Amino acid sequence: MTRWLDALDRKAGLRARAGLTRRLRPRAASDEVTDLAGNDYLGLSRHPRVIEAAAAALRRFGAGATGSRLVRGSTELHTALEAALADWLGTESALVYSSGYLANLGAVRALTQPATTLVTDAHNHASLVDGVRLTGRPPTITPHNDLPAVRAALAAAPTAPAVVVTESVFSVDGDLAPLAELHALGSAHDALLLVDDAHALGVLGPSGAGGVAAAGLAGAPDVVVTATLSKALGAAGGVIAGPAALIRHLIDTGRTFIYDTALPPATTAAALAALELARADDTGRAELAARATLAHARLTAAGLTAAPPAAGVVSVTAHGPAEAVAWAAACLDAGVAVGCFRPPTTPDPRSRLRLTINVGVPRHDFERALDVIVKTAPHPAPVS
Amino acid sequence: MTRWLDALDRKAGLRARAGLTRRLRPRAASDEVTDLAGNDYLGLSRHPRVIEAAAAALRRFGAGATGSRLVRGSTELHTALEAALADWLGTESALVYSSGYLANLGAVRALTQPATTLVTDAHNHASLVDGVRLTGRPPTITPHNDLPAVRAALAAAPTAPAVVVTESVFSVDGDLAPLAELHALGSAHDALLLVDDAHALGVLGPSGAGGVAAAGLAGAPDVVVTATLSKALGAAGGVIAGPAALIRHLIDTGRTFIYDTALPPATTAAALAALELARADDTGRAELAARATLAHARLTAAGLTAAPPAAGVVSVTAHGPAEAVAWAAACLDAGVAVGCFRPPTTPDPRSRLRLTINVGVPRHDFERALDVIVKTAPHPAPVS
Repeated sequence: MTRWLDALDRKAGLRARAGLTRRLRPRAASDEVTDLAGNDYLGLSRHPRVIEAAAAALRRFGAGATGSRLVRGSTELHTALEAALADWLGTESALVYSSGYLANLGAVRALTQPATTLVTDAHNHASLVDGVRLTGRPPTITPHNDLPAVRAALAAAPTAPAVVVTESVFSVDGDLAPLAELHALGSAHDALLLVDDAHALGVLGPSGAGGVAAAGLAGAPDVVVTATLSKALGAAGGVIAGPAALIRHLIDTGRTFIYDTALPPATTAAALAALELARADDTGRAELAARATLAHARLTAAGLTAAPPAAGVVSVTAHGPAEAVAWAAACLDAGVAVGCFRPPTTPDPRSRLRLTINVGVPRHDFERALDVIVKTAPHPAPVS
Repeated sequence: MTRWLDALDRKAGLRARAGLTRRLRPRAASDEVTDLAGNDYLGLSRHPRVIEAAAAALRRFGAGATGSRLVRGSTELHTALEAALADWLGTESALVYSSGYLANLGAVRALTQPATTLVTDAHNHASLVDGVRLTGRPPTITPHNDLPAVRAALAAAPTAPAVVVTESVFSVDGDLAPLAELHALGSAHDALLLVDDAHALGVLGPSGAGGVAAAGLAGAPDVVVTATLSKALGAAGGVIAGPAALIRHLIDTGRTFIYDTALPPATTAAALAALELARADDTGRAELAARATLAHARLTAAGLTAAPPAAGVVSVTAHGPAEAVAWAAACLDAGVAVGCFRPPTTPDPRSRLRLTINVGVPRHDFERALDVIVKTAPHPAPVS
């Protein structure tokens, strides 16, 4: 009866020996750490107007949505947020989910028919990978940002419906997919392009409308965008944006939409207030870009290996999982929170520190944090 | 390039002709409708202590968790909620997810090994079904609450690891799984029992600890419980509760835990405040049980077909999808919100109205709502 627990214990022992144990570190409200780990790119999660909008919704609607969107969970706040997202992203329509994970599961499934060729980038997020798994279709996984491989995958089944699945800004390494080229390739094969814009929304593009908009693809009838409301918008939840016919299809048939409790009204109001702030002012985006450039320059000048950041994610190579954990822990001891990415959270066996820029962090704290990362770095500096 | 949109339009036309179109009805904060549709069983989503706890967390921590639990999203509120959930449910440990859907995906996968026999009830929720699909294992789907079928499924692979997957209170028909018998059957085959307790948590069991606790199985080493925080607890999110070794396994390897933004601090605080209220006082549960019994008696006395409710869900048979929609619309016109369940939201081709008891609704409004349901019922009364 407890054989399964013994098996779990054995697996835990193997992970511990491989340096792959993870630990939750609860933070207090009084946490004084400099944040280079979260995804609050524009510092909006604590913006007074975001907090006030959420607090007002909490008092007007209660804590939870009390049901799925179709049964009881839709409020006028959800409708307003969806209209604002579609307007911002330049799509006909948009549908809010309780998480980006569930939005991605829903998007992949909605675009997949029984014979669809799914061409998916090797660095895609777990939620896109699980979305593909849920379709039951064997995907063609292409090497990261490899246009000839995508072309070959599409050419291999020239008459089948096809979907090219990618992120815009990749979550671990912070680099950008060649979206315009992928779209051109796809169009030549009548393929759809599904883009997870989670790390670009609010950060890239005109008025922060994201990586798809930055590539000139906003509103294209063969492009579907997903994103989270939990990163630059500082709230929680996800969205699928695209043609109105797709959104109607999702409302009628999308399992992760129909069978899930709606995003809480307060979170919905927070995302809407943050959207208005993010859209109205480019100052935060400009500061974010400047800090990302500075971080990359400072770290590479110190001999560290870091990819040039396309948005707010700066990935720094570590020696291995144990060393990455030790490095991140040394940073935290010095008051700096950085992301520590090890297998299986990485798309390859390489461990990294991941720095994410948060313009809500005071500039001098940010610069001090870069010093801390350099000073705590292992010697010799890790190379890819 | 827009062939796919034409195909979506054709499918939408087919759904419309079959009476299967769905429409989002956003509600305003000033909504005066009597709620017999949501899952706010104990009326806690608007309890002043729940609202205050959420508002305080919002001001202390900001709107969003700003990252995944492992990177930046864990707050002391998450830790406190997990400790309180484990204590309430009588398990060694508990892990909070951003939704019940993601908790179920994570639980099924964590319990499944390459050769595992998955025995899953035909009425199980979409999230459990998707969890099974994600494992890639072909499940054995047993007829609803059919113990001999479960016994046969387990006997068919006597040496393989096995998991029996069920809800406690089923979400559409409101009936109860024979948990003690399923557990006894499973134990005889060294099988695990995974129970989605979403519609029983706060409603059944000692101090509202749920259907698993009510069946005397709290803390059993071969039982894993999942639940939502969005129903009787009036908030949002999900939980997996069970042995500490399982929770550690999920923290290290669970994709829908690792790669998902954490539940917002305010929602976490709301769930914790609601848990304390739900656990401390049986009054709401007693009133809920009395109302469920009354609803069933009133509806069947009027010639309608309704299953005896095990908790707060009362399922009423409708003639078909179009009639169910018309009936629910007539109720709404008369100021009563009821759930309208049609394929594919139902586990069989039968359409239903689903009434869910909310003890936050004033008693006389509740009784009037039952009158409305009876008066708007089609003639002759639908039978199963």
